[in-house]
Amino acid sequence: MKPPFFSIQSVLDALQTVLHPNTGFIALHEPRFAGEEWTYVKECLNSGWVSSVGKFVDRFEEDVAAYTGVKRAVAVVNGTAALHVCLLLAGVKSGDEVLIPALTFIATANAVSYCGAVPHFADSDEATLGVDPHKLAEYLDMITEQRSDGCYNRHTGRRIAALVPMHTFGHPVDLDPLVDICQRFSITLIEDAAESLGSYYKGHHTGHWGLLSALSFNGNKTITTGGGGAILTNDEELGRLAKHITTTAKIPHRWEFNHDMVGYNYRMPNVNAALGCAQLEQLPGFLSAKRALAERYRHAFADVAGIRFFTEPTCSRSNYWLNTLLLDEDCVEQRDALLQSTNERGIMTRPAWNLMSRLSMFSSCPKMDLSVAESLERRLVNIPSSAALGIGHA
Amino acid sequence: MKPPFFSIQSVLDALQTVLHPNTGFIALHEPRFAGEEWTYVKECLNSGWVSSVGKFVDRFEEDVAAYTGVKRAVAVVNGTAALHVCLLLAGVKSGDEVLIPALTFIATANAVSYCGAVPHFADSDEATLGVDPHKLAEYLDMITEQRSDGCYNRHTGRRIAALVPMHTFGHPVDLDPLVDICQRFSITLIEDAAESLGSYYKGHHTGHWGLLSALSFNGNKTITTGGGGAILTNDEELGRLAKHITTTAKIPHRWEFNHDMVGYNYRMPNVNAALGCAQLEQLPGFLSAKRALAERYRHAFADVAGIRFFTEPTCSRSNYWLNTLLLDEDCVEQRDALLQSTNERGIMTRPAWNLMSRLSMFSSCPKMDLSVAESLERRLVNIPSSAALGIGHA
Repeated sequence: MKPPFFSIQSVLDALQTVLHPNTGFIALHEPRFAGEEWTYVKECLNSGWVSSVGKFVDRFEEDVAAYTGVKRAVAVVNGTAALHVCLLLAGVKSGDEVLIPALTFIATANAVSYCGAVPHFADSDEATLGVDPHKLAEYLDMITEQRSDGCYNRHTGRRIAALVPMHTFGHPVDLDPLVDICQRFSITLIEDAAESLGSYYKGHHTGHWGLLSALSFNGNKTITTGGGGAILTNDEELGRLAKHITTTAKIPHRWEFNHDMVGYNYRMPNVNAALGCAQLEQLPGFLSAKRALAERYRHAFADVAGIRFFTEPTCSRSNYWLNTLLLDEDCVEQRDALLQSTNERGIMTRPAWNLMSRLSMFSSCPKMDLSVAESLERRLVNIPSSAALGIGHA
Repeated sequence: MKPPFFSIQSVLDALQTVLHPNTGFIALHEPRFAGEEWTYVKECLNSGWVSSVGKFVDRFEEDVAAYTGVKRAVAVVNGTAALHVCLLLAGVKSGDEVLIPALTFIATANAVSYCGAVPHFADSDEATLGVDPHKLAEYLDMITEQRSDGCYNRHTGRRIAALVPMHTFGHPVDLDPLVDICQRFSITLIEDAAESLGSYYKGHHTGHWGLLSALSFNGNKTITTGGGGAILTNDEELGRLAKHITTTAKIPHRWEFNHDMVGYNYRMPNVNAALGCAQLEQLPGFLSAKRALAERYRHAFADVAGIRFFTEPTCSRSNYWLNTLLLDEDCVEQRDALLQSTNERGIMTRPAWNLMSRLSMFSSCPKMDLSVAESLERRLVNIPSSAALGIGHA
């Protein structure tokens, strides 16, 4: 039986076993450019096509669609923009509510705000780190009523237009029961798959279940385009519309400028897409390396008292984007000392995001009981996860 | 005395004199990468810093501020994002009206919509192609009233929060009287300087007069970062806030994630800023080449009947971003034939943007008499303007 507290030294030892940190500062997640990045970017510069037109955007969209198995991918400037457009095209309107996890990156909540809608915070499941479907179903049974145009929050009088689960640190949320909930309550499912490129749930890539889904290729993600994201959808008409609205809604014409709706300048520049094409070619290798790294962490932490290395949920294959330690509840007072010691020794670690429900601009938004998310917020620590750290061990 | 109609052949001859178009298709505006683009982008890839952190973003912001003489520049994903943030930080609120030219690119109007505000369309001055200050002052005298919190449109009851003149095709609008109008009517001035990097009004760079101003570095602009823009301001507190709100409004902390307002993921990636640094170094050369090209056009079109090559307004030094022909009013029936002939011969030309007031989503927005903008819309044709076309003639 484990003793109730952990020693910080035992965590440092476990990290050092895996990381051999005599190589200077170890970041949480660094990109790796070991493929055709150089060739493709040079091709952009030589052709003069660095911007909104160019073959790499088309190719990257096709490659992302082929990789994820989702019919259409539309490349955009970042994951936040992708989420914003997913919500708009799902029909989220000003004054609606959108269910999102309290434990998520700020982009999920901000994108809801951009639509003039109100985030409504859902609790997490410790098995997935994502939205707890069973707790959510019970909650919606209590607080909602069905009207002709959808599901309404009886307390606020607002329509609940969408549910946006997020695949936390790349670990797929339990999608099947969430799909059921969305059908039963007439709520649109959108996947925030910003962190889960390369993660599969029951054999399908994340982003397959949402009416629309969002990917991110920020510099800290599994692959990067500098800044970038993509909208995924299996609905061809929504795919066409996503391309249209992210490219200023211009009606194609040889010279005339006509736009048929308020559109966005969200297109990914060609030079960034060139990076993306090269990065995507290397994704299988990155994923093997990241799984190897996670496996080494799992071994190294197996006998560390008071702490658990989080592993992929049942039915899922995770990209292990950010490796995660969970402290036992009675060890949480040591979290900041652990963060301090590791960062001082050049091993970057960080806690979970502050729960969205605690941020000043969202503190009056509706929320369910968030006790699991609150517990995870106290107990969670991310540790270095770059693919390069696992290469040679894959 | 000129005859009343022009011959399309005479226009083709004038264009061919300048362009020697035996070199394949001549685009309207192509970027030129003849400097350190390669070196700086490689430095990004080698360092792993392609994304939101990295020295090129800081350097590009410093270089843009130094070049324009405006105190602070904040690099963002594109000119539309820059305009959006300018409006937000100027206090434009949902339900406000914002005065913008009817003759502008869609971004000006879209950015107003993103704030939940309503574009209010102003007429143009044929001397600058931008907002006509004298007509605007008379119009505001008629339709507005002052209240304690600003200028109100008596017809709609909405506050007129801002005026956003745009420096059309790089030609500075007549700023002094617009500054006066904004002071007299308590309206905030924001410059849409997306097209006018390198353009000066009475000795100062455009973007100097607005409380905030927006630049663009899209692929078709005088310099490019692939996709990019910048917010300019002489107000240090607004500059700090612009950086904060475009970087998710995160409060700096070694590991904690706290955000104090609804922010945006608008930061320019480092790899794009690297391109920008290299491009900005070449800007003086691009500007000389573009002026040389404009001068050759001016000569070539001097004797073409029914058409006038537009030259920089008095008191201004223009970047001649897009060179512009103005057809005489009695020649407008020939415009489409001219567009057809030139494009068929591989010389790209295009008309003005459709007036914003004609687009379906803005057709019910308030507007003043737009007779000059309507005339310019019928008569205006842009012709090839890349810096490369003027090199060797500078």
